[in-house]
Amino acid sequence: MKYAYINGTILEHAQATLHISDLGLRRGYAVFEFLRVLEGIPVFLEDHLDRFARSAALLELEPPHGPEELARVVLELIGRNQISEGGIQMLLTGGYSEDAFTPGRPNLIITPIPVNPPPPQLYEKGGKIILHQNRRELPEAKTTDYLVAVRLAKRARAEGATEVVYHDGRWVFEGGRSSLLLVKNGVLVTAKEEVLPGITRKHLLEVARPLLPIEERPFTLEELYYADEVILTGATRQVMPITQIEDRPVGNGQVGPWAKVLMEAFQRHLGAYLSQRRANAVHKASPH
Amino acid sequence: MKYAYINGTILEHAQATLHISDLGLRRGYAVFEFLRVLEGIPVFLEDHLDRFARSAALLELEPPHGPEELARVVLELIGRNQISEGGIQMLLTGGYSEDAFTPGRPNLIITPIPVNPPPPQLYEKGGKIILHQNRRELPEAKTTDYLVAVRLAKRARAEGATEVVYHDGRWVFEGGRSSLLLVKNGVLVTAKEEVLPGITRKHLLEVARPLLPIEERPFTLEELYYADEVILTGATRQVMPITQIEDRPVGNGQVGPWAKVLMEAFQRHLGAYLSQRRANAVHKASPH
Repeated sequence: MKYAYINGTILEHAQATLHISDLGLRRGYAVFEFLRVLEGIPVFLEDHLDRFARSAALLELEPPHGPEELARVVLELIGRNQISEGGIQMLLTGGYSEDAFTPGRPNLIITPIPVNPPPPQLYEKGGKIILHQNRRELPEAKTTDYLVAVRLAKRARAEGATEVVYHDGRWVFEGGRSSLLLVKNGVLVTAKEEVLPGITRKHLLEVARPLLPIEERPFTLEELYYADEVILTGATRQVMPITQIEDRPVGNGQVGPWAKVLMEAFQRHLGAYLSQRRANAVHKASPH
Repeated sequence: MKYAYINGTILEHAQATLHISDLGLRRGYAVFEFLRVLEGIPVFLEDHLDRFARSAALLELEPPHGPEELARVVLELIGRNQISEGGIQMLLTGGYSEDAFTPGRPNLIITPIPVNPPPPQLYEKGGKIILHQNRRELPEAKTTDYLVAVRLAKRARAEGATEVVYHDGRWVFEGGRSSLLLVKNGVLVTAKEEVLPGITRKHLLEVARPLLPIEERPFTLEELYYADEVILTGATRQVMPITQIEDRPVGNGQVGPWAKVLMEAFQRHLGAYLSQRRANAVHKASPH
């Protein structure tokens, strides 16, 4: 974490500051992306750049650079910070605002973030989720609206839960930092609207499509409670089985067969992605 | 706007920066207060300090100073910036966070903000509001969650509206930056729960109490549409009559008699408050 990028300049991370009139700070008006770096490669970078642009458009913020330049900065930061395993955050704010309300020219920040991957036993035994009635404002955009997630993290930790899942009393939306899927009678179900379009979720659906039927539709709390299996996805947690909802077991309380199949299939898919990026990098670097 | 305050230090406003790892910027985890300065006096300062402490407690943030020291800084900033008419914002964030998620030691910022009071015709002819289905997360706390308000400001302006009012399809909550009251059959009605405890609203209720019956309870969209009068309150707009909801007039479309009475009563109340503060200031400064 030696270097960060702000508005066109790479500078010492310790010196990376914004003026207090920034609208991200003052009014929570900002979008971001977080992407995992594995083996020095930014995982699913193209998808993250796509979603970054879509989130920005939903807030009527125009990024100062297109995806090619953003990708170049991400790769430069990975190189200069010598990141083999870690994370990169891209943040686009409403910019400096004199009246603390009207957006100005967006500020763009790209910075490395240290990552603590979840412990292996969460994948072997499955994790616990807790539920909370909440709906993110403008859920299709990845904004910095994490008020509830940050506030409930302590309660989640105290209860041994890995994630807080939002619902409205009837419909289940998503985790505070993850997408949610369930398996019932051999069908994979996951919400498509009124939730963040998860990128790990998208790739998991890609590998799941040849394996089992998929229904992309809203599901209820009751369906969640009576699911055979529940799965969380996210950039850091990847594909994680959930075996407990509040104090109730999911199915028989063990990691289910579909979760195992899907975790393995996702790891193969991710491995293939990383191999291909490595090959491309070698190809680009070669003199031919 | 020459000076601002950050974490114990008054510094040049232009130099007032936070590191990009601040959790207010990264995750919208911050509370604030905005208070009007009139005749060099911070209006309803005690109420704002109270609410600041309550908002902070709801986010489990501990302000580094108690209300006396915060009041002292506010007065010092008013003096050093020579503010006669304007505004002051106090902001308390989740602090610097290495993992961009776990709160650290809160950052406290106090800074002047320029204010453009609404044009007089809004008080003479009344304003227009537009409606939007939204509920602020953790509405009782004054957080920096203004994503929807900032995003809709352009639409409001384009439609000639002074404010966006949030509802859930049935119940009406509050304006993006204001509290909402209605008058029906001589009774003043305003929501008390699931909304920000508005300070101008509180003072308006104080002056209204001897004048007409008050019901502090939730009200519906239907009640809003069929109200005799509608009133908005806020630190900058003070007490503002609303004569149009979307494309429908409120009552006969004119500023109603209760709005006139309440605007006048509030101005007297505010005048008395300012006189008393001036007297206190003279008293404190006198050598007796």
